[in-house]
Amino acid sequence: MSLSFENVTLGQRVLFGYGRAARNLSAEAERLGARRVMVIAAPPEAEIAERVTADLPVVLRHSDVRPHVPVEKAEAARAAAAECRADLLVCVGGGSTTGLAKAVALTTRLPIVAVPTTYAGSEATNVWGLTEASRKTTGVDDAVLPAAVVYDSELTMSLPVDLSVASGLNAVAHCVDSMWAPRTNPINQAFAMEGLRAVADGLRRIARKPDDVDGRDAALHGCYLSGVAFTSAGSGLHHKICHVLGGAYDLPHAQTHATVLPYVLELNAPGVPDTAHRIAGALGSATPVAGLNDLRWELEAPRALADYGMRREDIPEAVQLILPYVPPDNPVQVGAEELTDLLTRAWAGEPAQDRKAA
Amino acid sequence: MSLSFENVTLGQRVLFGYGRAARNLSAEAERLGARRVMVIAAPPEAEIAERVTADLPVVLRHSDVRPHVPVEKAEAARAAAAECRADLLVCVGGGSTTGLAKAVALTTRLPIVAVPTTYAGSEATNVWGLTEASRKTTGVDDAVLPAAVVYDSELTMSLPVDLSVASGLNAVAHCVDSMWAPRTNPINQAFAMEGLRAVADGLRRIARKPDDVDGRDAALHGCYLSGVAFTSAGSGLHHKICHVLGGAYDLPHAQTHATVLPYVLELNAPGVPDTAHRIAGALGSATPVAGLNDLRWELEAPRALADYGMRREDIPEAVQLILPYVPPDNPVQVGAEELTDLLTRAWAGEPAQDRKAA
Repeated sequence: MSLSFENVTLGQRVLFGYGRAARNLSAEAERLGARRVMVIAAPPEAEIAERVTADLPVVLRHSDVRPHVPVEKAEAARAAAAECRADLLVCVGGGSTTGLAKAVALTTRLPIVAVPTTYAGSEATNVWGLTEASRKTTGVDDAVLPAAVVYDSELTMSLPVDLSVASGLNAVAHCVDSMWAPRTNPINQAFAMEGLRAVADGLRRIARKPDDVDGRDAALHGCYLSGVAFTSAGSGLHHKICHVLGGAYDLPHAQTHATVLPYVLELNAPGVPDTAHRIAGALGSATPVAGLNDLRWELEAPRALADYGMRREDIPEAVQLILPYVPPDNPVQVGAEELTDLLTRAWAGEPAQDRKAA
Repeated sequence: MSLSFENVTLGQRVLFGYGRAARNLSAEAERLGARRVMVIAAPPEAEIAERVTADLPVVLRHSDVRPHVPVEKAEAARAAAAECRADLLVCVGGGSTTGLAKAVALTTRLPIVAVPTTYAGSEATNVWGLTEASRKTTGVDDAVLPAAVVYDSELTMSLPVDLSVASGLNAVAHCVDSMWAPRTNPINQAFAMEGLRAVADGLRRIARKPDDVDGRDAALHGCYLSGVAFTSAGSGLHHKICHVLGGAYDLPHAQTHATVLPYVLELNAPGVPDTAHRIAGALGSATPVAGLNDLRWELEAPRALADYGMRREDIPEAVQLILPYVPPDNPVQVGAEELTDLLTRAWAGEPAQDRKAA
């Protein structure tokens, strides 16, 4: 079968360096000709943000950041940006902080320079999200893609191991799910597999020694690759399942991803043996599910949906909610039976296993 | 040692599909709102170009294409573009054709959609080149990067095996040399290794069966990855050597690259054992030089600089010409002695070998 695909590469500059955030940020602001910088950082990152933006012409420090970008918070930030006549947005923090900067850029068209402090990967995408009355709207607009990303793993040193693991496993899910997502292709697959290799290696080192610089560097550059792969490939079965579960049962984002992934891999791997082999290789294992299980075991990853408040009797409803979202080109057919089995085992935390190709 | 790098990703759309060039080209022209298309294609590609552009609003077909883009040819094409009030350049062909379109875009700022028929990789870069009085000038400008690339391996089916091999080995050189080029980083290395894997696999299939669609697809998407890696990483030792040799002794481009590469790999591999291991893996071999030799043997690749008109007595001068261009951060130290040895062996076609790490 001949190869047919479309791939959109988003233009973006990345500056990566331990302890270099302030320097790299200054260089970028200058390159962009910024004279009035609005810094967005939540209170826990206020100190880091102040340190790395010390040399910038800051006109406003905005700290009112909430998860999922509530629309009223977005509007307040947009008004603040207009009032201070900002010409550049600099966001320092995790996915919620980057998300707020994107919401401002969406209407103001201001450029963003992002300084991530977690492994969320949002800084590599042109996807924005807003929440109004508990309902999340997402969209795609190149104006929200940060012009530049400044990565400095020194800023992630204080991220506790459990949060590093949760955030990093989210990046692992981006990589694995990209391999069969709707727009998967040889280009984003190359990113996904290199991202998986780097994140897995980085997380293993961090779990053993939280201040391992090489480990932090690997996790951080791997999470960038995972974001690039994911934004190019789109959401596969795993992300569809987690999106529905998170919305319907108020399950925690990262933990849901960490718990569900092995079962999606178990289900899909037999339908794409070459891909399964590549995933195993990136995890340093002979088979993919065993490789992911080993990684999760080393990292003491979340194990069962039951631990996060989902009830066994929710499963039939969840199956019905997920069914319409199953991607039509998923490598194996997924009906109510497969989903029921998957959710039942993920709920109980029954170990996922490598299955034979059909 | 902590990781420090800058990576610039160029935004570009790729449409890939066997037999889909006409369709994909129409979609791109429409997306760009083109109403007056100037088609650039050399006479050997005239028929292909006419076929794939049949549905476009073509106002001019320009066929005066020469290697290395002589400046007077560029000026004639620019004048033609102005006269016909083109709003889109579509180039169909190899590196010289893409190069002429870039020369027009450089001054007119017109967008380009490239339809490559070889593995040159120029369509993935923002580098332009012009030749005046036998002197080549090159530069970098994002305006010359094609907005979109339409890949259709059906168009490469008529490329003879020896030209496919020469062009493909040029892509192999892009990948290998990217691993120690001045701006090498984990991001362009991921592209380079995936490109190497795909091109090597594709060329092997093409050598066995010239109309193998999977092989043509692999070589073509691999050459795109090689172009992306190379434009991001820059020229390493290999490209510096070949650039000097090509200019000073009028050696053929692709053959020079194909001949010199194993000796650069032989020299550099011991200085970067992890990289050497990755190169070997991408070539499906236990060690890198043996892997490259095997590939070259299967492809009946060019073997010795002596076969292309270089004289043994040219070597001392060549060494002196190359020395100033040796990248300061090359993984092993390269002086007159190393270059003399390298050129002497490449001149004679003495087999390159894997050396032990220092």
